This record gives sequence, C-alpha cells and structure tokens, in this order.
Amino acid sequence: MKKYVPVLLAGFTANLAIAQSSVTLFGVVDAAINRYSVDGGTTVTRLGSGGLAASRIGFRGLEDLGGGLAAGFWLESEFAADSGTGGTTNTNNQATGTTPANQGLTFNRRSTVSLLGPWGELRLGRDYVPTFWNFAVFDPFAMQGAASASNLLFAGTSGPSVNVVRNSNSIQYLYNAPHPAGAQGLYGQLQYALGENPSGTATASDGKYYGFRAGYATGPFNGAIAYSKTNNLANKDFTLTNGGMSWNFGFATLMASYTVAQTGLPNSRNSSYLLGATIPLGVGYIPVSLIKTKRNNAAQANAEQLAIGYVHNLSKRTAVYTTYARVNNHNGAAFSVGGSAPIAGVANAKATGIDLGIRHSF
Amino acid sequence: MKKYVPVLLAGFTANLAIAQSSVTLFGVVDAAINRYSVDGGTTVTRLGSGGLAASRIGFRGLEDLGGGLAAGFWLESEFAADSGTGGTTNTNNQATGTTPANQGLTFNRRSTVSLLGPWGELRLGRDYVPTFWNFAVFDPFAMQGAASASNLLFAGTSGPSVNVVRNSNSIQYLYNAPHPAGAQGLYGQLQYALGENPSGTATASDGKYYGFRAGYATGPFNGAIAYSKTNNLANKDFTLTNGGMSWNFGFATLMASYTVAQTGLPNSRNSSYLLGATIPLGVGYIPVSLIKTKRNNAAQANAEQLAIGYVHNLSKRTAVYTTYARVNNHNGAAFSVGGSAPIAGVANAKATGIDLGIRHSF
Amino acid sequence: MKKYVPVLLAGFTANLAIAQSSVTLFGVVDAAINRYSVDGGTTVTRLGSGGLAASRIGFRGLEDLGGGLAAGFWLESEFAADSGTGGTTNTNNQATGTTPANQGLTFNRRSTVSLLGPWGELRLGRDYVPTFWNFAVFDPFAMQGAASASNLLFAGTSGPSVNVVRNSNSIQYLYNAPHPAGAQGLYGQLQYALGENPSGTATASDGKYYGFRAGYATGPFNGAIAYSKTNNLANKDFTLTNGGMSWNFGFATLMASYTVAQTGLPNSRNSSYLLGATIPLGVGYIPVSLIKTKRNNAAQANAEQLAIGYVHNLSKRTAVYTTYARVNNHNGAAFSVGGSAPIAGVANAKATGIDLGIRHSF
Repeated sequence: MKKYVPVLLAGFTANLAIAQSSVTLFGVVDAAINRYSVDGGTTVTRLGSGGLAASRIGFRGLEDLGGGLAAGFWLESEFAADSGTGGTTNTNNQATGTTPANQGLTFNRRSTVSLLGPWGELRLGRDYVPTFWNFAVFDPFAMQGAASASNLLFAGTSGPSVNVVRNSNSIQYLYNAPHPAGAQGLYGQLQYALGENPSGTATASDGKYYGFRAGYATGPFNGAIAYSKTNNLANKDFTLTNGGMSWNFGFATLMASYTVAQTGLPNSRNSSYLLGATIPLGVGYIPVSLIKTKRNNAAQANAEQLAIGYVHNLSKRTAVYTTYARVNNHNGAAFSVGGSAPIAGVANAKATGIDLGIRHSF
Repeated sequence: MKKYVPVLLAGFTANLAIAQSSVTLFGVVDAAINRYSVDGGTTVTRLGSGGLAASRIGFRGLEDLGGGLAAGFWLESEFAADSGTGGTTNTNNQATGTTPANQGLTFNRRSTVSLLGPWGELRLGRDYVPTFWNFAVFDPFAMQGAASASNLLFAGTSGPSVNVVRNSNSIQYLYNAPHPAGAQGLYGQLQYALGENPSGTATASDGKYYGFRAGYATGPFNGAIAYSKTNNLANKDFTLTNGGMSWNFGFATLMASYTVAQTGLPNSRNSSYLLGATIPLGVGYIPVSLIKTKRNNAAQANAEQLAIGYVHNLSKRTAVYTTYARVNNHNGAAFSVGGSAPIAGVANAKATGIDLGIRHSF
Repeated sequence: MKKYVPVLLAGFTANLAIAQSSVTLFGVVDAAINRYSVDGGTTVTRLGSGGLAASRIGFRGLEDLGGGLAAGFWLESEFAADSGTGGTTNTNNQATGTTPANQGLTFNRRSTVSLLGPWGELRLGRDYVPTFWNFAVFDPFAMQGAASASNLLFAGTSGPSVNVVRNSNSIQYLYNAPHPAGAQGLYGQLQYALGENPSGTATASDGKYYGFRAGYATGPFNGAIAYSKTNNLANKDFTLTNGGMSWNFGFATLMASYTVAQTGLPNSRNSSYLLGATIPLGVGYIPVSLIKTKRNNAAQANAEQLAIGYVHNLSKRTAVYTTYARVNNHNGAAFSVGGSAPIAGVANAKATGIDLGIRHSF
C-alpha cells in the first residue's frame, strides 16, 4: 500500500522543490524594565519592548537570476515582547489608513519584493522612508527606547506624520542603500509612494509622497542628506529635510544631524539638531546624545534632551543595556521620553526615562 | 559550571527532537502598480498585492506514519505586499463571522490537519471550497489581478457569498485533489462545513455547507464539475454549479468554464461562461480571456470582460507581468475590475484595469 | 557584471551570518468535531480547535554564551485550526487590556527573552502564571477540549480572571521549571508582573501581580503548590492558591489537585478539587477525571464534572482522540463544557460535551 502515498501526496508537496532553499528567518526579542516620569505629572513602570532594538520577526531571501540579476523579498513584523501583540501599519500613508493598535502581527516593518542588479535595486512595497535613515543612523540610540531621538524629532513634526518612519505602496530605486556598516562609497535611495485615493475629490492627492536620500562614506566618515514631501491638502503638504554625518575617531564615533520639519501653514517649522557619540568600552559601548528642538511659533516652544546609556554585549547576538534620558521643556513645549510616548509630556515640565533590558537577536 | 546548563535547559528544549524535520516554509510576494478606472467614474492608481498570485506565507509538513498512512498540516496566511496587513477570514461561513479588514495575519488561506492513505485524504479545517477550483484552474489569470474572473463571476453571485472561495469548519474527503498540474486520472473533493450556530433559532442551520468536485485528466485534457449548497434562511439557500475543461494543444492551452450561481429567491440566477487561453511565448506566456455573465432579473443585467496579459519568467520563482482588462456593463450591470473591487463599478459604464508587477515565490 | 551583485547585496544580507543557526520552528494543529449541549438549552456542533492540545505555531532558540550562561527566546502564537484566526492576548493584565477576539496572530501564548545559568533562568515577557501549571499538569485533559478542568476551575474564579492563564509584562525567576516530564528534584517559578497603569489614580496598582510555584519530583511522584495575588481595587484583590500531586503506578498515573480562588469581597471563595488518572492502553491512553467545585455564597452553588477520553497515538507526533464530559450543576451553578464556553451554561442544568479529533505536532 505504501507505494501509493507518494502519488497521492503529489498535490500536497508540489511546491517543495522550490521552497525554503533561500529563506532566512531572523528577529530580535528585546524587553526592558522602563521607568518613565514627568515632573509634577505621572510616573509609569512597565515592561517595555525594544529598548535597544525593536522586537521583530522576519523572513527574507535572495534568488540569483543569473546575468548579474537577483530577485529578493523581505517580510518583517514588529511585535511587543511584553505582550505579544503586533505593531501597527498604515495602508495609505494618511491618518485614515492607520491600523488598530494591539492587534495581530502584520509585516509592518517591511514588506517588499525586489529586482537587483549592478545598477542597483528596484523595490516595491512597504519600507522605511529615506529621511528616517538619517534619524536612525546618526542617533547613538538608533531611535529606540527611553532616549530615542524620536522623543523630540518626531513629536516635533507638525502636520501629518503617519509616514515619518515608513511608507506603504512605495516604489523605490536604491543604490547601495541603506548604507551597510563599514561599506564605502556613494549610496542613494529614491522613493515614490501612492496615497491610493480615488480621483474626483479635493484630497485625491493626499498621501502621495516623494523623497530621496544621498550619502557618501569613506574611511571613518559617513554623511547623508535627505528630503521628502507628502501631499496633504489641509496642511498644504508636509516636508522633511535632514542631514547627518559621523566620524569614527577610534576612541569614539562622533555624530551630528540637523532636521527641519514643516507643513505649508504659517509657524509650523520645527528645527532640531542632534550631537552624539558612541564610545567603545570593553565588550560594550556608551551611547550619549544631546538633542535640541525649536518651533517657530509665537511662543518659540523649545526643548532639549540629554541621554546616556551603556550596552554590555554578552555575545554578538545578546546584550544587556541601560539607558537614561532627561527632557527639559521650555516656552510651552511638552515633550516626553520613551519614543512612542507611553506617558504624555506636560508643558514646561521635565521628563525622565530609565530602561534596563535584554536584547537577543536570532 | 557549564555542565549544569544542559540539565537546566531540558524543559526549554524538550520538543527539539520532533521539531522542524519536516516543516516547509513557503510563500509568494507579488506587488504591482494598478491603474483602475471607470468611464465617467473614478480612477485610482495603487500599489496592489497579488496581481499574478496572492501574496502569502505558509508552513506545511507531512509525516510518514508507516503502513501507507501519513499525517499532514498546512497553515497559510495571505498578506498585502503593499502594506503588510493580513487577509480576512470568516469564522462561521456567514456574514456575521467575517473578520475585520486590514488587521493582522491569520491563516485565512488555509488551516488544516490531514490523515492520508491510498484511499485519499481526510482533511479538517479551513480550506478552499470545491467550486472555487473550477474558477481558478480554468481562468488563465487564476482569479488574480486586474483581469480576475472574480470581477464578474463573484460580483455576480447573488445571495450570501462569504464562502465562495473558502470555508472554515470544513470536513473533507479528497482523492488526488486539487488536481496537481500534469497528473493524470480521476480526482475528487467532497466537503461538508459547519455554520456552528447554536440550536433553537430559525437561522440555526445558516452557514451549513456541502459541496463536491469531480474531475478527470488524461493526456492534454483536464475537466471537472462542481456543486455546492450553503444553507441560508433569508435567501432560501445559495447554490453554485460550475464546470470547466482545458486542452493543451501545444501552441496554446484553451479553456472554458460555465457557472450558475443562484439563491432560492426569484430572478436571482447568474449564469456565466469563460473562454480563455494561455499561449506560451519565449520564457513566458500570454493569458487571454473572455467572460460573459447575465442575470435573469427583469432588466436582464449583463456584462462581458475581455482581458489579455503577458507573464515574463525571469526564473521558475520570479516573473514580471502586465495585465489589461476591460469590462463592459449593460442593462444596469455595474461590474468593475481588480478582483476585490478597489473601485466601485458604475451601472452601464465601462471599467478598465492595468497591472504591471513582480511576482516572487519562495 | 555578475561580480557586482555580492557588493550591492551586502546590505540586503548583512544579518545572514547570525541568522537561523539556532531557531526551532514548532507547532500543533489540532482540530476536532465538537458536540456540546445543555439539557433544556442549546446544542452546537462545531469544528473546534485544540481538543487535545492548543493549536499553535512558535519560534524559539537558545544561544550558548559560554561560562555556563545561555540566552534564549520563545515566541508562540495560538490559532484556531478551524478558521485560522489568532488567539487573544492582554496588554496590562486587566480587563481594559484584552485584545479583540478573532483577530490576527499574536505571540499570545508566550513572548519571552531569557538569560540562563546554573542558578536558573531570568525570563522577561508574556508567559504562563505559576498557578496555571498546577491546573494543567494535574489535569488528565491538560486544560483542553470538552473536558478541560477550566470548565469548572476557571468559570468558578470570581473576580478579575484575565490573567488566570498568562501574564504580560512579567519578570520571572525559574529554577528547573516548568518541570519537564521525567525530570527529578526541586523546581520553582517566581513571577512578578506589572499592570503598567500611570500613577495618580486610585486604580494605579490594578493588574500588578506576584505569584510563585514550588514543586518536587522523585521517582514516580510529582507534587507542587502555587499562590498568586493580583491587585484590583474594585474586588479588593484576587488571590489563587492551588496544589497538586501525581503518582505513576505503572498501570496508571493517578493525580489530584485542590484550588481556592477568591477576591477580597464577602462570599467570593470558590474551592475545587480534581481527582484524575491517565491509564496507558496499547499505543494510547485513557484520561479520566472527576472535578467538584463549590462557592461559599448564600446558595452554596456547586457542580461536578465527570469525564473520560481515549487518545490513540498514530506516532509520537500524531494522535486521534475522543473525549466525553458531563457537568452537573446544583444550587444555581451554571457551568458548561468545552473550556472557553462555546455554549453558555444554564443554572442547575446538565451539560454534555463530546470531541472527536486529530492532533498533529511539528
């Protein structure tokens, strides 16, 4: 009887031959005890996710097509290590397309298919916006945890900001980008993304996006600039311009970035700079940063953040870490700590954040 | 100290021995630029998912039980390549059980456990309904993208249509089905599915389903018929009957199908036919189809779709493709293009759809 | 041209070196035909999920850090084998944090990162509460299916019970726990979990949890006790105390457990005991259990459940099984069958449940 089984199973296993040969399963589980407080406001103690690197699980692969060509895919899902919920995504790069919080896993971090060649990469799907890389690469805390530069830089973005990290519906050309650590030379990212609104309404173009990033690395130096514009009728469009650079002096890598975010409405401009360093220490390193942001409104609201941490590598894949951040608000500014604002800031009040956690990669 | 670790980790790794030996990870990432328009209506330009094959990720495996028996599982999740969201499922094969759109990943495409032997396969869980295979196998566009036969065939199904593609809660017997490409001989699928309503109400039987498909393939010929009935009090049940066949002439595979969908209410019958072909061309092929559907209501609403495409294989796993579809509505019909109706049709107006995309399998 | 590809792909494949070496993919697909009825009430026939073991898919791994240390992660998602939907989780161990039913997959069963050594394990994230293990280990039906001890033991827990199975935001110390089958000696689990409410309100401490479990196994004996307290202002806190033991006599393993669940309010105490056995039979075994629960309210509501089943192993990974459970309610009690109460119980009415299913592990 047994000989029949292979025949009967033919339909069941039809795709076996092409499956799995080139799929990489990867991820991060990062959990930390957070203690965030606002002077004269509230305090919260949490087990948080992603204090050093966002908790994620992903699948990716690359196929050699011959002739110098390759095809690839990348599917990556964020999750909360403390509760197991998935991260939110957005279907149309507008507020109307934001998916619910605390729902199931989606490939919100990245969902792309690519063709690659000596000329670069054509990439379709959901991915980081070009300007985000200047935030992340030139922030010693990589936009994560208590001291994330997003505390001031994102909270300071007036106007529609649902696509300040990623765009859905994007069509991209990339050349050697995002720039891999240690690589040399030119790199660039050109992104166009669709808002997908039907024609015939005044807001038909809302959510349409274009942006680019161009950079160069040589020896200890890395620097890049980026710009983006998102169509938005109510706010007369939203633009983001930033640039950053870093220099590895050996005893430390110093970095700086400058950002201007604004809508087309009056007094909507936020300008910010970041000065930072990562200082190697034994098997780990010390990240430090100073961020200053200012809005050109009547009050001239402004704030600064000072942060320091320590990352102790137990292996290439596993680290324990701690972070301390202090935000100081002036002239009505109400920024807080912890990246995604687990507690609301209070106007002119100081905010303090502490993380103590474990990051494990696989 | 190190010798203690294996003992302490015993609980952590208890299942290691049985894990992973037979799991296949597989999937598709398919993204395309869509331009869909209705004459006198709206136009939308999108990055869409699944123009040639539905974007998906899945896990499946097969265990040889000896004695000609095997056990298997299949878990498969749809996702939107453009935004990373998951596909919807349905818990009770009724409108009340439809899960939200744009939520997290579920195993909505398939979630089954099976016992297999020389006698066939017993399969429990969520799976395709038998009638769907006649739609998909005998549509040159495989029910995907701008020209999907579902434009007319599904939109034309009066009555409850939540289970026109898949059923949850199904109990199935399959013999050599779904028919694997190139295989010969008889095949069949018998499905019973539960609506899971508690007893004691008039609609207690709603969502209960039975259906079958029987087919035969020999040499260049493949043909099958299918029938299903879903209990529904309000619509006096919903029945679907279809059949299709294909003949591979070498220079082209020609195919045809015929479908009748109706409820038990008067003038609810939709009858449709499809004529199609896939024509090999170099490393790719040209799919073409003509579909005609007609409703037996007073107006005799009817429509036809003409579609052509080109699929260029870069490898067995990767293709670039383009599709053009044109729907022509008459007598009040309001069908549209793009499968899941990204833009609404307008009565008696023509609708046009174009896809240009990449499909990558892994 | 081909030589350029490796350089261009460097960013795409940067993490390859550390990926996948130690990731285990595992899971269960368990589907059963359920027939649940309440005398004088409703009957429902379903295809249910997890009659013998919860349907799940997971990813876990372990990294040797040297010096007797290891790091590990465990991500595990429940799903409904009948419809493909995910299981619910809870973000704050309070009713306000419960996520929607029938949504996407989350790592609701477990989402943890660990450091391990000869001293035990430090584990952060979402995991089982200590008291749950005494329910599951000393229930012949392992808290699953028609005869799950949760029919009486969970339904009988007055007060907030969202964390009767698992806690999010937990910080744990474990020693040789949960106790692996066949292992000998002491084991223990100490858990603290955060409610994550901001300070400044009367319910700021709601959802805060501490609990422990301690056990010992030697030869055929295994026994453990556990206790937990969850802060809750409205109910003056919620406490759960249980203990259980088992003895393997060879011809059968006998087991017993005792549970007291109560809030700080008057007449809120539920006390329950379970007597059970698993009796090896050929390639399978027979599970039997008797459970009695009683509430100390004015009516002295009480109920008992008698259950028997048969599990037939087709291999180590695959089993077919059947279960029969009968609940008898007295003095106003309204317990039902089937674990998560697919049909509501009726006061003083008997309830009957039957499962017939397949469980396949991978």
